[in-house]
Amino acid sequence: MKIHKEKITFKSSAQIEFIDMTEDIQTVVENSGIRAGTVNVFLQHTTMGIIINHNEPMLLQDFMRVLYHFAPVEERYSHDLFELKKTNKADGRSNGHSHCKAMLVGSNVTVPVENGRMILSDLQSIFAVEFDGSRDRDVIVQVNG
Amino acid sequence: MKIHKEKITFKSSAQIEFIDMTEDIQTVVENSGIRAGTVNVFLQHTTMGIIINHNEPMLLQDFMRVLYHFAPVEERYSHDLFELKKTNKADGRSNGHSHCKAMLVGSNVTVPVENGRMILSDLQSIFAVEFDGSRDRDVIVQVNG
Amino acid sequence: MKIHKEKITFKSSAQIEFIDMTEDIQTVVENSGIRAGTVNVFLQHTTMGIIINHNEPMLLQDFMRVLYHFAPVEERYSHDLFELKKTNKADGRSNGHSHCKAMLVGSNVTVPVENGRMILSDLQSIFAVEFDGSRDRDVIVQVNG
Repeated sequence: MKIHKEKITFKSSAQIEFIDMTEDIQTVVENSGIRAGTVNVFLQHTTMGIIINHNEPMLLQDFMRVLYHFAPVEERYSHDLFELKKTNKADGRSNGHSHCKAMLVGSNVTVPVENGRMILSDLQSIFAVEFDGSRDRDVIVQVNG
Repeated sequence: MKIHKEKITFKSSAQIEFIDMTEDIQTVVENSGIRAGTVNVFLQHTTMGIIINHNEPMLLQDFMRVLYHFAPVEERYSHDLFELKKTNKADGRSNGHSHCKAMLVGSNVTVPVENGRMILSDLQSIFAVEFDGSRDRDVIVQVNG
Repeated sequence: MKIHKEKITFKSSAQIEFIDMTEDIQTVVENSGIRAGTVNVFLQHTTMGIIINHNEPMLLQDFMRVLYHFAPVEERYSHDLFELKKTNKADGRSNGHSHCKAMLVGSNVTVPVENGRMILSDLQSIFAVEFDGSRDRDVIVQVNG
């Protein structure tokens, strides 16, 4: 099996944000020289998730709203007390809701590669979804063929 | 690495529907001649999802109900306005809720293959779940070994 | 492609429980002798899920609470009637809610392996999440390289 791995690095700019990684990931597939196989997109973060869906700005608002209802920011999360005690100051990150959203969405997707391209349809984009920005982030892209 | 890929095509018949693909996917595994490895089941659609669980009709009703509560049909979705403007007519598809359910469920699963068979337990079925039917659909099945 | 597969067996002790499998899975990776590739962690159960996130006890309480809200124990599930009829006795397992939570969380994750180790960050643990314990359970770990 041939393996090619790259890390895509970026800085998220908002607390909740959908970052379309499709072109960057396709570039890694091309860099790999692998014509057929799979690409595994994996996050090393616990307050982000990976989603494949339609990059339509109004739809992304809908996604944010349903994710918000799943784990509302204004509820109390036990984890926020842990963060507060750890930092011993009032500006500890209150990100229990971010972990909960990440748990829902998941940390990896595996996409088939054929003729050197991911076989996504025209309506599919691969998003890294930030739930606790802004932060320096990276996405692991591993092509196997 | 040996790779075998097939597309399974079908037409969904209801707006929300659980289609049990287990036997069709197992047939692709057998067609591949691959005895050990993985099978990646991947959707190129943005209003469907993949679920592995028990094919028990009353349980599928429960799944539909909890998915309904996650993204109710009767709520307003910004995406539905986008669809309405795009088509310039009143019969634009109102499927914001379908995308939201698809986002929740996810687009792929990877199942181990051993002795030419997926190692599913007797209670496990692989479902393609339609959230915006009826439509012509297909499921990508890629066996790697 | 080289393949190494092991089954990790354990008994869950509570109805809902996060079992941190990270070290056990890393041991399987080491047993495989595979230095680079992927590890696919797969459940053959329909009332468990796989989550990668932070092993912080208060955060796990938050996860349980949001999963509880997604599929509350005290609601009525059609599946519970199925189980009751099947067993013909009043002590049939009432686990419709467990299947619903499992559906949400998903049955597999695929993690990259490099230099003989999973490339997880320090804050990431791989959990097998029990939604219908206590039970005898196992987790399939397949290393591909």
